[in-house]
Amino acid sequence: MLLYGYFRSSAAYRVRIALNLKGLTYDQTFIHLAKLEQLSDAFAAINPQKLLPVLVTDDGASLTQSLAIIEYLEDIRPEPPLLPKDPLGRARVRALALAVACEIHPLNNPRVLRYLTGTLGVSEEQKDTWYRHWVEEGLQAVEAMLAASPQTGRFCHGDTPTMADLCLVPQVANGRRFKADLSRCPTVVRIDAACQALEAFASASPAQQPDVE
Amino acid sequence: MLLYGYFRSSAAYRVRIALNLKGLTYDQTFIHLAKLEQLSDAFAAINPQKLLPVLVTDDGASLTQSLAIIEYLEDIRPEPPLLPKDPLGRARVRALALAVACEIHPLNNPRVLRYLTGTLGVSEEQKDTWYRHWVEEGLQAVEAMLAASPQTGRFCHGDTPTMADLCLVPQVANGRRFKADLSRCPTVVRIDAACQALEAFASASPAQQPDVE
Repeated sequence: MLLYGYFRSSAAYRVRIALNLKGLTYDQTFIHLAKLEQLSDAFAAINPQKLLPVLVTDDGASLTQSLAIIEYLEDIRPEPPLLPKDPLGRARVRALALAVACEIHPLNNPRVLRYLTGTLGVSEEQKDTWYRHWVEEGLQAVEAMLAASPQTGRFCHGDTPTMADLCLVPQVANGRRFKADLSRCPTVVRIDAACQALEAFASASPAQQPDVE
Repeated sequence: MLLYGYFRSSAAYRVRIALNLKGLTYDQTFIHLAKLEQLSDAFAAINPQKLLPVLVTDDGASLTQSLAIIEYLEDIRPEPPLLPKDPLGRARVRALALAVACEIHPLNNPRVLRYLTGTLGVSEEQKDTWYRHWVEEGLQAVEAMLAASPQTGRFCHGDTPTMADLCLVPQVANGRRFKADLSRCPTVVRIDAACQALEAFASASPAQQPDVE
C-alpha cells in the first residue's frame, strides 16, 4: 500500500498509527502542505478534496478521509481490533474519534488558517489564539467524556488502543505545537503518554517521518 | 429512543433520516440552538460537547456525534443497509460522508460563526461569504468525487440511499439557506432531488419538524 502523507498532517498520522497497529507495511509519498503541493493539479487528480491522507491499495484504489481509511483497514484486517465488538462501545469510540476529527481538527486545517490570515486579514496572534481555542475547548469536551465513563481505561476505551486513541494522539501533538493549555485535560494527557509508550504510535510520530524538517 | 434535536441542526437532520430509513420510531426533545440552550449546564450534563444531536437509547445510553449514531443504528438494525457490503464501497461511502461532516459542516457550526463575528469582529457579510465559501468549495470536491465514479447511481453510491446521502442532503439544505452557488455541482443537485422524493428524507426535513419557526 502507498500512503500520501506529510509529517505534520495529523490526519495522515492517524492512518500511520493504524497501519502500524495492524502490522501492515506501506510506502509513503510526501506532499508538502506548507509548500501547497496539495493544491497542484496532479494531486487534485488523485484527491479532488486536495487533502491528505490518501491511501492507495495494492489493487490501485485511492481511498480518502482518514477515518474512512481506518474503517477500511478494520474491515480488511480485523486484528488487532480498533473498535470494540459491542454496538454501544463502538458508538462511544467513534464519538470520541469524531469529537476530534469533526470538532477540533477541521477548524485548524491549513486552508482555514490561510483564509483567516489571507481573506479576513486576521493577525498571526489572533490566528494562534483561534487555534488554541478550538484545541482547548475540544479537548476539554473529550476530557469530560473520558473522565465521566467507567469504560475509560489505560486508553480511551479499555486497555487496548482504539480508533479514539488514533485521533487523540495526533491532536494532542498539534495542540502542544501551538502551546495549547492542556492542564484541564489530565485524562487526555495520561492516555497520550500511554499511547506514546507503544512502538506503533512512537514510530508514526511526525519526528520519525522521513520528510520531517 | 429519544432524539435531542433542533429543526435546523443538519447533524440532527442526518440522524432523523437514518431513523426514518431504518423504520425506527423516536421521540424528540428540542434544544433551541439560536437561543444557546445547548450551552446550559443541564444540556452539558447530557453532552459535554454542547452539540446536537444526542440519541438516548431505550436502555438509557446517551450517544453523541451524528455519524457514530448512524453507525450504531447500522449495527443494531442492519436493514435496510446504509453502507455497502464490500470494504472498498464502504470506504467510498464513508469518505463521501466525511467530506461533508469533516470538511464543510464544522466550519459553519453556530459556535464558529459566533467566534468570527464576536471574538474576531468579522462583519455579517464576511461571515456569510465564509459560510458560502466552505459549502461551495466542499460540495465541488464532493461533486468531483461523484462525477468521477461509475459507482455513483441514482444516489451517491448505487441506487439506494447510504450514509453519504444522509450527510449530503442536510448540507445542501444549509447551503441553499445561505444562497450558496451550486451551479458547478449538477450531480449533487440531482442526487439531492432524488433523495427528497423519498418519504424518509422529506419527513426529516427542517420544515417538517415540530419546532420549525
